[in-house]
Amino acid sequence: MSDTLTTPLLTLADVEAARIRIAGKVRRTPVMTNADLDAAAGAALYFKCENFQEIGAFKARGATNAVFHLSDEQAAKGVATHSSGNHGAAVARAAALRGIPAHIVMPSNVSAPKAAQVTRLGAHTYLCEPTMAAREAEVARVIAETGAVLIHPFDNLDVMAGQGTAGLELLEDAPHLDLVMTPIGGGGLISGVSTAVKGRSPGTRVVGAEPAGADDALQSFRAGRLIPVVSPNTIADGLRASLAESTLAVIRRNVDDVVTVSEAGIVEAMRAIWETMKIIVEPSSAVPLAAIREGGIDVRGLKVGIIITGGNVDLDKLPW
Amino acid sequence: MSDTLTTPLLTLADVEAARIRIAGKVRRTPVMTNADLDAAAGAALYFKCENFQEIGAFKARGATNAVFHLSDEQAAKGVATHSSGNHGAAVARAAALRGIPAHIVMPSNVSAPKAAQVTRLGAHTYLCEPTMAAREAEVARVIAETGAVLIHPFDNLDVMAGQGTAGLELLEDAPHLDLVMTPIGGGGLISGVSTAVKGRSPGTRVVGAEPAGADDALQSFRAGRLIPVVSPNTIADGLRASLAESTLAVIRRNVDDVVTVSEAGIVEAMRAIWETMKIIVEPSSAVPLAAIREGGIDVRGLKVGIIITGGNVDLDKLPW
Repeated sequence: MSDTLTTPLLTLADVEAARIRIAGKVRRTPVMTNADLDAAAGAALYFKCENFQEIGAFKARGATNAVFHLSDEQAAKGVATHSSGNHGAAVARAAALRGIPAHIVMPSNVSAPKAAQVTRLGAHTYLCEPTMAAREAEVARVIAETGAVLIHPFDNLDVMAGQGTAGLELLEDAPHLDLVMTPIGGGGLISGVSTAVKGRSPGTRVVGAEPAGADDALQSFRAGRLIPVVSPNTIADGLRASLAESTLAVIRRNVDDVVTVSEAGIVEAMRAIWETMKIIVEPSSAVPLAAIREGGIDVRGLKVGIIITGGNVDLDKLPW
Repeated sequence: MSDTLTTPLLTLADVEAARIRIAGKVRRTPVMTNADLDAAAGAALYFKCENFQEIGAFKARGATNAVFHLSDEQAAKGVATHSSGNHGAAVARAAALRGIPAHIVMPSNVSAPKAAQVTRLGAHTYLCEPTMAAREAEVARVIAETGAVLIHPFDNLDVMAGQGTAGLELLEDAPHLDLVMTPIGGGGLISGVSTAVKGRSPGTRVVGAEPAGADDALQSFRAGRLIPVVSPNTIADGLRASLAESTLAVIRRNVDDVVTVSEAGIVEAMRAIWETMKIIVEPSSAVPLAAIREGGIDVRGLKVGIIITGGNVDLDKLPW
């Protein structure tokens, strides 16, 4: 389903165009700081709070940019994607804003609140077996039937560009950052954010963090070629995907390093954010702070921007 | 322990002076909004987020104002209070900022994290039996021994004035409010906030909300005299106290109505705030929204300011 081998790498101009395209359709989220977390890290940490974004996650940015970049002719038959989480809600919301149909394929083990959210946003929903093969087959069937356009969760230049708008805002609200960190799943977020950061502030380092149990980005970054994770094993449900060729290419160009964290470290950092910052973040959001607290990266004395990816958690199934 | 029968009622000038006194020592917290909660209420809700305040609660305002309003001579021997929660931490922090001793009496059933926080802030701590009589006796003993000044959690004009600064900020960030709601425990918050609101915006209504299981404010408001709650029974641990003569007097002057909510309503509203706003709030914070969602007050079509009191909850003991 890759449409990227023939497309150029993402540019700062793409991210800047995305920002104009989605202005007023997504929120400008706040950057928060916390003295206790700073003291523990020996650094100044600037958290870009995408948990306060529409649909509770940064995914609203990329989906909105992709849906609104379609021509009227392309858009007429709607959009489709498969998702067990935030991207499905983001596509459903963007399609509703544009007034076109959305077709969202979800695995049968999707959480009830997430499925209900997508339905509430007016999308047509389809359940399938919870495997990537079944999901891709079902979305291909839906597209063949409806003529809808696929909005891939990360292997899509417009999606990457949209996610990058979080990086532009972060740089404006927290200038002179020495380092920007994001989690890495499929790589859409770090592709967009790193393009924004290296374009606007070339001296700022960009480092990705991922669970050791889903470390395909580290493996692929080191090898210089895609090494997909076979059986991702992590509580960070947003980070179980593997990179695409398109995101790996951007990461190899822009990203200075990739670090991994333990599962216990993710839970500890997540709880620290809840307790000290009084905000609800999902496990994926805690991965960069976990890397700092576990010592996987030395940030002492630095100004560090961190993307908090989202806040959609099941309050009945907390990991402590 | 009342020092108020001989003091005048709180004035807007007191709150304005408090604001100058505590500037830079407490945070200006954000006002947040949420489209989903607005749609459910049929109103525009403006949440003043004191869960992001220093020590995680609005109590930092009143304690800081009271501690910094002392003369050097009064302050020399330190300050004392009894508290099982946020006020103790607030006094400890304010005393540390001023560089004077703090003596905090806590009931023996205080939660371990709250006791640790007070100790970490450098206060002298004292444990006593978990009854109000034992707490008052122990703090009297500590004061006799040390010469410290009592900082009562609400029966204190400076404490009320400090809490009122949240109201000034709310009015500035959310102008033209039809209604302001706060929870009521001992009445310090609503005394300060209602004085700020009626002083700056006389046409804005002020309504207090409290748990039906600790409805002394409603009883006292109706009777025009103190009717203390004998056995408060509510999850909203910040609201178990009864009014003082001083706070009842301000409430009778300023407050338009008092409404009560069920325990189930508090938990439902608390969870709704967590899930939709992605912020962590304690049960007391959810009481005004519970009143709206239970229909105890009709806010349809109104602009409503709500004080979110704090975010200190035990993440191992959530009420769902």
